Amino acid sequence: MSSPLRLGIAGLGTVGIGVVKIVQKHADLLGKRSGREITITAVSARDQRKNRDADLSSYRWESDPMAVATADDVDVYVELIGGDSGIAKDSIEAALRSGKDVITANKALLATHGQELAELSESLGRLIRFEAAVAGGIPIIKAMTEAMAGNSVNRVMGVMNGTCNYILTRMESAGLPYEAVFEEARQLGYLEADPTLDVGGIDASHKLAILSSIAFGTQVNFNAVEIEGIERVSIDDIRRAADMGYRIKLLGVAQMTARGLEQRMSPCLVPADSPLGQLAGGTNMVVVEGDSVGQIVLRGAGAGEGPTASAVISDIVDVARGVRLPMFGQPAGTLTPAKAARTAVPAAYYMRLELQDKPGALAKVASVLGDAGISIDRMRQYGQHSDTSVPVLVVTHRTTPDAIDYAVEALPKTGVLVGEPVELRIEEV
Amino acid sequence: MSSPLRLGIAGLGTVGIGVVKIVQKHADLLGKRSGREITITAVSARDQRKNRDADLSSYRWESDPMAVATADDVDVYVELIGGDSGIAKDSIEAALRSGKDVITANKALLATHGQELAELSESLGRLIRFEAAVAGGIPIIKAMTEAMAGNSVNRVMGVMNGTCNYILTRMESAGLPYEAVFEEARQLGYLEADPTLDVGGIDASHKLAILSSIAFGTQVNFNAVEIEGIERVSIDDIRRAADMGYRIKLLGVAQMTARGLEQRMSPCLVPADSPLGQLAGGTNMVVVEGDSVGQIVLRGAGAGEGPTASAVISDIVDVARGVRLPMFGQPAGTLTPAKAARTAVPAAYYMRLELQDKPGALAKVASVLGDAGISIDRMRQYGQHSDTSVPVLVVTHRTTPDAIDYAVEALPKTGVLVGEPVELRIEEV
Repeated sequence: MSSPLRLGIAGLGTVGIGVVKIVQKHADLLGKRSGREITITAVSARDQRKNRDADLSSYRWESDPMAVATADDVDVYVELIGGDSGIAKDSIEAALRSGKDVITANKALLATHGQELAELSESLGRLIRFEAAVAGGIPIIKAMTEAMAGNSVNRVMGVMNGTCNYILTRMESAGLPYEAVFEEARQLGYLEADPTLDVGGIDASHKLAILSSIAFGTQVNFNAVEIEGIERVSIDDIRRAADMGYRIKLLGVAQMTARGLEQRMSPCLVPADSPLGQLAGGTNMVVVEGDSVGQIVLRGAGAGEGPTASAVISDIVDVARGVRLPMFGQPAGTLTPAKAARTAVPAAYYMRLELQDKPGALAKVASVLGDAGISIDRMRQYGQHSDTSVPVLVVTHRTTPDAIDYAVEALPKTGVLVGEPVELRIEEV
Repeated sequence: MSSPLRLGIAGLGTVGIGVVKIVQKHADLLGKRSGREITITAVSARDQRKNRDADLSSYRWESDPMAVATADDVDVYVELIGGDSGIAKDSIEAALRSGKDVITANKALLATHGQELAELSESLGRLIRFEAAVAGGIPIIKAMTEAMAGNSVNRVMGVMNGTCNYILTRMESAGLPYEAVFEEARQLGYLEADPTLDVGGIDASHKLAILSSIAFGTQVNFNAVEIEGIERVSIDDIRRAADMGYRIKLLGVAQMTARGLEQRMSPCLVPADSPLGQLAGGTNMVVVEGDSVGQIVLRGAGAGEGPTASAVISDIVDVARGVRLPMFGQPAGTLTPAKAARTAVPAAYYMRLELQDKPGALAKVASVLGDAGISIDRMRQYGQHSDTSVPVLVVTHRTTPDAIDYAVEALPKTGVLVGEPVELRIEEV
């Protein structure tokens, strides 16, 4: 057996403690699998006195993560502090410069500074590994950078924020409005301190941007993701979508087109009986389509102590085994700047309109859709909703986002709508 | 860039040609991802004159696979001949002894001689990699040996023979009996030359035995798999199971218990709306449960040129990148002989009985089940099936296989059954 691999861990929240526990519980197993002993030398977190669910007494405590990142007796710096800049970034850079490999779960940092960090680590001959940054326990980074190495990827998509999926699933099962379930989620501790990261789609978009880079060999470009959160998803839409055989999911999709790279994160309809439609609660799912392998679907827990720590350990064992590969699956210098393209890939759309209950209203709507070049697959008019309006659902045939935009702008001008039209993309899976 | 990685490929069937095509089509991509050029030096197959869907003119043709396996200008021997002994095994051994790494898709060989080959390759400091041997394009070997390295596995299960799943799915959708769909599958070329390998559950059991070894750190033990094929699955059972909310799948399950390692391959009922229940046609699915990560589900094409070749290429790129890890995820010498245990883990069971249409018949059945200690979750008696008998379905509460065996033996002795009772395990997923 080779010399032990010595870890320094900065950040002792849920994931950090999970890593400590696995290293302790599975010492023998990890030794057998890695061919070397995995040890922890030093740890760091903000508050040493905080009560933590693990015995840390045999590790050196450092109040400054920098001290862990640069310690002589640390081989691998495990950054679990989080944040897209500041000490997380500084300490990772310091660790690389002092000759250490780095393992991180920091999706925000990689989505915003991934290219810079890939270049730095490669120039120093060090690794940055980040399986835990995307979709928790699902080995999607490994699947894409290693298992699918013989594929040109056509499309990658997924449900990658468990909190949003919990909220949407719960709204449907309990018949509760968004605000009520949001409040439940907050009380259950499912939301980030800044809940916009979750429900605004930011967190999931960080993950999508990272997957795009691997999929298409492009420099990670989080700013080019078209993001819409789940805040405007109403219980009405969830019910109506279910009526038509769909479920609403916060779905990230990245695909390369002749016009450039489309990356979007938005509430979408998916068939209720599809793998994505069946996904309930906090579970994550990623779907990747390669030119050789076809469609691969991976499903698992997207967050939580055990699953996320399991992903960190996977990186640790790889480093211990001597696995060395470029951060995004190919050398940083070969990643090309992605030309960002606004979504133009056609799709079917769901529209919900609240029509004034008067003769000719539906004809005016149909006429606008016709003008927009949108043809209708299915339309359903419901019984009266209020004294003066009736809900109408439309599922269109495949059409362009531009046509939908045109319709959404033109429809209110007909004077027969109550409120704004709601439109949601139906993603083909 | 390092020196090229030179492949020698023996076996130019669907998978072999698929590998050649990817190496040719994605030369640039593979170079970027591997850090070295991937080239093919020599190929071998039985008939050089056969018309193949790839340009082989720039590779040296060897009529003897041994010549490829031992060639000085080959770094990696890719064995795609198949068969659990003979030239496949001999040539792999020869390749290892002449200092080459080996990549194979040969599940039969690994299931029967895996331990021996792992020991040989390790003693010689060479690799045997086999992602393509299990579940085609699904990266399950990588997921289990690498991504789940921080987990003790509780259970692994899956649908791993696309032909069987095609037959069962088609029986349900077309309402056709087994024999008719079997004949269809044969005409479509879906069946192995010896169809027992597919429908008898042998092929899927080879795969299960390999996964068991990785999951539990045990020496691969194909002979200990309890195997039952799909031949006795009737359209009646498929219809009745659907009535009760289930689908029938040829499911492999391996789990470690206090009594030993249970490995079974058999037609099972799974909830129709579960991921396994939703699996249609030739698609494969593997479910792994780890103590840290929880449940991970992987789904993809289990066979075919592109998917299987994609898995071979994944191994090739790993070897090119210098990835070196033990064949079954830990050194061969640390794999323990598995104590094989007959299935004893309790489960609910489905039973279909054809009862004589006379008073007291049901009471006698209920009495036998009671004697066996089996309690009934649901029972359904259908209208008369023939002039003299009625079908009765029973879904039991969780009970032991022993209790079911007792009931199956005792029921015919009541004298109220027409024919033998049918019993199928309901696997919890």
